[in-house]
Amino acid sequence: MRFSQLLLPTLKETPAEAEVVSHKLMLRAGFIRKLTSGVYSYLPLGLAAIRRVENIIREEMNRAGAQELLMPMVQPADLWIESGRWEKYGPELLRFTDRNGRQSCLGPTHEEVITDLVRKNIHSYRNLPLNLYQIQTKFRDEIRPRFGLMRGREFIMKDGYSFDASEKDVEITYEKMYEAYNRIFSRCGLAFRAVEADTGTIGGSFSHEFMVLAETGEDTLVICKECSYAANMEKARAMEQESPDEKPELLPLEKIETPGKRKVQAVTEFLSISPKNLIKTMVYLVDSKPLAVLLRGDHEVQPVKLKNLLNGVEAELADDKQVFDATGVPSGYLGPMGLKIPVVADREITAMHNFAIGANEKKYHYINANLGRDFEVATIGDLRMVTEEDRCPHCGSNLELTKGIEVGHIFKLGTNYSEALKATFLDNQGMENSYIMGCYGIGVSRTVAAAIEQNYDKDGIIFPLPIAPFQVIVLNLSPSAKKFTEAAETIYDGLGKNSIDVLLDDRDERPGIKFKDADLIGIPYRVTVGKSFEKNGTIEIKERANGQTISVELHETVDRLLEIIRQKMVR
Amino acid sequence: MRFSQLLLPTLKETPAEAEVVSHKLMLRAGFIRKLTSGVYSYLPLGLAAIRRVENIIREEMNRAGAQELLMPMVQPADLWIESGRWEKYGPELLRFTDRNGRQSCLGPTHEEVITDLVRKNIHSYRNLPLNLYQIQTKFRDEIRPRFGLMRGREFIMKDGYSFDASEKDVEITYEKMYEAYNRIFSRCGLAFRAVEADTGTIGGSFSHEFMVLAETGEDTLVICKECSYAANMEKARAMEQESPDEKPELLPLEKIETPGKRKVQAVTEFLSISPKNLIKTMVYLVDSKPLAVLLRGDHEVQPVKLKNLLNGVEAELADDKQVFDATGVPSGYLGPMGLKIPVVADREITAMHNFAIGANEKKYHYINANLGRDFEVATIGDLRMVTEEDRCPHCGSNLELTKGIEVGHIFKLGTNYSEALKATFLDNQGMENSYIMGCYGIGVSRTVAAAIEQNYDKDGIIFPLPIAPFQVIVLNLSPSAKKFTEAAETIYDGLGKNSIDVLLDDRDERPGIKFKDADLIGIPYRVTVGKSFEKNGTIEIKERANGQTISVELHETVDRLLEIIRQKMVR
Repeated sequence: MRFSQLLLPTLKETPAEAEVVSHKLMLRAGFIRKLTSGVYSYLPLGLAAIRRVENIIREEMNRAGAQELLMPMVQPADLWIESGRWEKYGPELLRFTDRNGRQSCLGPTHEEVITDLVRKNIHSYRNLPLNLYQIQTKFRDEIRPRFGLMRGREFIMKDGYSFDASEKDVEITYEKMYEAYNRIFSRCGLAFRAVEADTGTIGGSFSHEFMVLAETGEDTLVICKECSYAANMEKARAMEQESPDEKPELLPLEKIETPGKRKVQAVTEFLSISPKNLIKTMVYLVDSKPLAVLLRGDHEVQPVKLKNLLNGVEAELADDKQVFDATGVPSGYLGPMGLKIPVVADREITAMHNFAIGANEKKYHYINANLGRDFEVATIGDLRMVTEEDRCPHCGSNLELTKGIEVGHIFKLGTNYSEALKATFLDNQGMENSYIMGCYGIGVSRTVAAAIEQNYDKDGIIFPLPIAPFQVIVLNLSPSAKKFTEAAETIYDGLGKNSIDVLLDDRDERPGIKFKDADLIGIPYRVTVGKSFEKNGTIEIKERANGQTISVELHETVDRLLEIIRQKMVR
Repeated sequence: MRFSQLLLPTLKETPAEAEVVSHKLMLRAGFIRKLTSGVYSYLPLGLAAIRRVENIIREEMNRAGAQELLMPMVQPADLWIESGRWEKYGPELLRFTDRNGRQSCLGPTHEEVITDLVRKNIHSYRNLPLNLYQIQTKFRDEIRPRFGLMRGREFIMKDGYSFDASEKDVEITYEKMYEAYNRIFSRCGLAFRAVEADTGTIGGSFSHEFMVLAETGEDTLVICKECSYAANMEKARAMEQESPDEKPELLPLEKIETPGKRKVQAVTEFLSISPKNLIKTMVYLVDSKPLAVLLRGDHEVQPVKLKNLLNGVEAELADDKQVFDATGVPSGYLGPMGLKIPVVADREITAMHNFAIGANEKKYHYINANLGRDFEVATIGDLRMVTEEDRCPHCGSNLELTKGIEVGHIFKLGTNYSEALKATFLDNQGMENSYIMGCYGIGVSRTVAAAIEQNYDKDGIIFPLPIAPFQVIVLNLSPSAKKFTEAAETIYDGLGKNSIDVLLDDRDERPGIKFKDADLIGIPYRVTVGKSFEKNGTIEIKERANGQTISVELHETVDRLLEIIRQKMVR
C-alpha cells in the first residue's frame, strides 16, 4: 500500500477527547475516528491491526477444535425472557420494538442464542463435545463510554461457547481453551498473565481472565514471584496468617477518650499502637442492606469477596449518613460491640488479641478488646484485598501486585443456561441431561488498544510484529529523484512478492514528517532510502522497538528483512 | 474438518417455512437456522461459503485500489437529519433512542457516515481519488422478510464509496469498479450479467446491476443476442420503430358499438384488427394524481419509466373505482378524446395511424382514430416494457428476456450527499468543490443464496468450486475397518497439507446417508473409499456438477485432485 493513496490521517496534536494512551495514539495515528459517544470507525490501519488479531484467534480456536459460525446481532426478547435475563440485564442491553411490534435487543452476548441453536439441532452425546465461536461486532449501551476502544459501546468480540456431556469433559474443553488463549496472546506478541478470576453475575464455578500487563491497566493482579499462582485482586487469596503458638494473656478491656481521632492512622498514633493491633469496622450495603465488616487496621475490604460470601449481587461502601442511619454512631468511632446490624469479619482478625476498636460512642475507643470475650461475629471469611506483605496461597513465596488490562475471559458456566432453556441431550444410557457449558470471550478491538497501552513511547506506538498493520514501512526521502524512487519501489515490490505487508511512504513531504509518522504509527521495521543511499548506496533498516539500526546494500535489503521477520514470527 | 465433529445438522424433510430453492436447501443442508423473522444464524458451512465470497470481494476491491475500513452499525440521527434521510427513509430504518436519550439508528447503508468521515479528514485534491469499502452485517426492518437469505432483515453486505475530484475521474473509478465486479462474480464461478439499471431513490446518473442468472429470479433482464447491451427491464430500451415511409391516408373516424368488449383481445377480435392497431388507455396514479397513459394494444406499461418521465416518486395502476372517479368512464371503454386528466403516451403510438381507441362511453369504441387530428398528447416518451419482438437499441439485433437475481449494484451518486453534508475539498486551483461520489454494493449473503438458485438439482446444492465451503468431501464407507480408515485419513491429510479444504465423513452411518448428505451440501468433488477399494484397491472421484466419475489408485488420489482443482481455480 502507498501512503499517498491511503486514508491515514495522522495528527500532530492529541485531540482533547482522549484520556488514555491507546486512545490518544489511535486517534493521532489515524487508526480510529469517533462517530458518536463510544462508537468508532476503524480506518484502514486500525482495521488491519484488528484483522491480524482476529486471524490469530481464528487459527488457534480452529486448532483447538472449535468451529466458527456467526449468530445474529438482533435477537428476539423471547429467549432472554426464557433465560431470565430480560429482567436481570441492566440498561446496557439495548432493547427495541421492531416495526412488527416484536420486542428485540442488540445482542451484547450470545448465551441464549447459542443454547437455543444447540437444543434445536443436537440431541445426542455422540455429537459432543461441541465448541462454537464467532467474531462479531457487539453493542452494549454503556452509560459512560470512555478511553476509546478500551470501553466503547460498539466493539468487536470473539465469543465462544462449549457444550459437554460430563464434568470430566468440560474440564478437558476448559483446559484446551486455556491453552488456546495462552497461544493466542503469545502469538500476538503481548506480555500477559492468565489469572484466576471472579465469575461475576454470569455465574459458574471456574474462571480465568487473560490480562495484558500495562501500568495503565484498571485491574490489579496478584502474582506469585515463584510459582504459577496469579489472580485478579477480586479473587486473589493469601496464605493464612498463623496464629501465635501461645495465646497471649487477655488484658482487661479499657475505654479511652480519643477526641477527633477517627481515621486508623490518627487513632493508632494517638494510642501508640500498630494499625495491625486495631480492628476497623466498616459499614457496607449489600443489596441495599447495611452490615458491619471487621478487618485489621492495615487491610482493605475487597467488595466482590464480600458480596460473594453473602451471596449478594452488589456490595458498596456506606456513606457517613448511611452509617449513622444504620448504627446511630458517627463514622470513625464504630466498633463491633453491641451493634444492631449483622457483623461479618475478615478471617485475619481471628489471630488477633488485645486490639483496639471503636466504642460506638463519639470520641471513644476501646483497647484490649478480644473476639469471643467482648463480642461475637456471625460470619467469618476472606474479605480483604491481598497486599505485597502477603504470601502465595500455593507456595508461600512473596507476592507481587501489578496492573493489567482484561482482554480475555474463560468461564465454566455449568448448567445455568442449559437448565433455564431446557437444553438437553441423551447420554450413552439414553438418559436426558442438561449440557454442561463453558464460555470464552476475547475483546478483539480491546486487545489492539491494550497492545498499545503496553507498547509505546513518547514518539508513538511500538507494535508487536504479529499484529502490526504493516510489518515494514519504506521511506522514500526523495520521491522526486528517480534513483531513490527506483530503489524504494524495488524494496517495496520485493517485500510484497514475499507476502510481507509493506507500506511505502511515497508522499511529497519533508523527511522529518515521514520519520515522525513512521514512529507514530509504530510499524516494526523502517527502511529508509535517504542520505546514506545518496552517499554510498546503502539502505538503513531500523527496528522501532529498540532503535537498533543496520546499514545494508540495496540488493540485500529484502533478504535481510525476510530473515529478520521470519525469525521473529514464530507460530 | 471431520463430519462427526461438525455442527452440520442436515434434514431429510424441507421445513414448511421455506418457499424458494435456496432457502429450502440452505436449511436442509444445515447452512443456516432461523432465529427470528428474517434473521438467521450462519452455521459453519454457511459461514464458510460466505467467507469465500468475502475473500474474493476483498482481493478484487484491493486490486482495484480500494481500501477496507469498518464503520459502526449504530449511527447517530444527526447525520441522517443533515442528509435529509431521517425523514425520507421509511420504516426499514430501525430507529431507537439510547439510554442517554440520543436518537440513533442501525445503519442500513453508510453514505452519511462515510461522507462525514471524509469531510473531517480529507481536504485536498492530492488525497483523491479515494475509494473505501467495508464488509458488514446490516439491518433493514423489512415488513415482510422472506425467501431466507434472499430477502432477510439482517444480512452481510459489502458497501463501498468513492470520492473523486472531477467527472472524468469518477468515470475512471466507476469503470474500475465495473471491472472489479465482473471479476468478482466471474471468480465466484457464477453465470451473471451486468445490466443498465434505474438509479431508484438513491439518485445519481449512472448505474449497473449485477444479476446472477436464475430461472427463479425476481428481476427480468433484457439482453441483446449479438452485442453487449443488457439492461434491467425497468431501464431497458428498444430500437425505435421506424415510421412507414409514406404516411397512409387518414380514414374518417367511426364510432362502433362494442357491447361487453372491454379487454384488448376481445375488442380487436370483435373488430377483426390486430392489437397493434389499437391504442389502449390506462389510468395510473403518479404520486396519487391520476393520469392517462396511451400505448399500443400489445404493449405493457413499465411503471418506473412512467414515474421517471414525470419526475414522480411512485406510479401505480388505478383500480376500476379510481378510473371511474377520475374520468367518469367505466374501465374498458376509456380513450384519449376529451379526457379531463393529463394524457401521456408511449412514443410507439406516434408511428400509428387509423387505430382503434375507446370512446369514453360505455359499449363504444372508435376506429380510424389519428393522433394530431382527433386528439393531442401532452407528454410522449418511452413508457413501455421491452418485449422479445423488439430490437437492440445499440445494434438492432434480436433481444432475449431472462430472469436474474440482483447481487451487486454500482451507482454514480454525483454530489447528492457531498452537497447535503457540505463535504468539500480544495482543487488544484485552491477552489472549494464538492466531492463527486460513487457507491458500490454487493449482497454477500445474498450472493451465496443466488449461487444456489443457479446451481442445484433434485439432490441438493451444486456449489461452484470457488465458493464451496469445502472443495472435497472424503467418504469413508467403513469407518470401523482399519484399512478404509487409513486410506481415508491418508487422502484427508494429503489434501489438507496442500491447502485444500476437505471434509472427512467419518460418521458411523450407512453409505446411503453419506452419499445423500454429500450431494445435499453440494461439495464439488466427492472421494469415496468404498466397495471398489475393498475389491481392487481403487478410489472413486466424482464431480458433483456433472456426475462424472473416475477411478484412481489410492497413492495417486491426492495428486489427481490437486491437478483437477488447480485447473478449475483460475484467479
